[in-house]
Amino acid sequence: MAEFLLDPRLAADSSMLLALPIADVRLSNDARFPWLILVPRVAGAVEMTDLSKPERAYLFEEITLAANALRDATRCEKINIGALGNIVRQLHVHVVARFAGDAAWPGPVWGSGPAVAYDPGARDRLADDIRTRISASRT
Amino acid sequence: MAEFLLDPRLAADSSMLLALPIADVRLSNDARFPWLILVPRVAGAVEMTDLSKPERAYLFEEITLAANALRDATRCEKINIGALGNIVRQLHVHVVARFAGDAAWPGPVWGSGPAVAYDPGARDRLADDIRTRISASRT
Repeated sequence: MAEFLLDPRLAADSSMLLALPIADVRLSNDARFPWLILVPRVAGAVEMTDLSKPERAYLFEEITLAANALRDATRCEKINIGALGNIVRQLHVHVVARFAGDAAWPGPVWGSGPAVAYDPGARDRLADDIRTRISASRT
Repeated sequence: MAEFLLDPRLAADSSMLLALPIADVRLSNDARFPWLILVPRVAGAVEMTDLSKPERAYLFEEITLAANALRDATRCEKINIGALGNIVRQLHVHVVARFAGDAAWPGPVWGSGPAVAYDPGARDRLADDIRTRISASRT
């Protein structure tokens, strides 16, 4: 069985937040949108249907945990969830906090122009807040 | 408890295919992309987190059924799954068959320009094929 290795483009575009039972939760490096990326640690998975039914069930509950934490941390107007993979094939799920008037509103964030770097302090505060909320909701 | 009513924009942009236990499966009227839309019949639901845990579990298995049927019917290169809701707030999940070189590739289909109407015969053939595949996979 092949080893799970994170795609280098996902590694470059996001930073590790915490590991849940099935997926790594990562924070996008694009400061325009508070944006989590869940990467199931299942070697070779491309489509949702490449996961077993129990793996999918875990992943979907982890998506829900991430969405709740992101909404509570940001008080956003809408959560956007997407699994596209047209460019990076390794299965990954986007969970994005959206605000009326944000840089892509009301369109999708994917393909909406170049990323903007975080101020490191702002990124660390958001990362700590989300990590704490996800951990608290699992206890 | 409020009654479930389909949002009129979803009604205008898609056609009913079949009802699964939690969600109606609809076919988008945009011929550029073979595109299913799942609408959970849960009044007032906007975010995934508005569903109960069993409702979510059902919905995600229905997304999987729909994705498998769409992939098998179209032999597409990639399935895109998304729940955005920035414009239409009623909870709905897109399951889209993507092909290298399609009208939005490799970007997202949402916000990718005006829809193109189906030839009615082509739409009916695709609808019948997907309906048959989803029904067969549930028996």
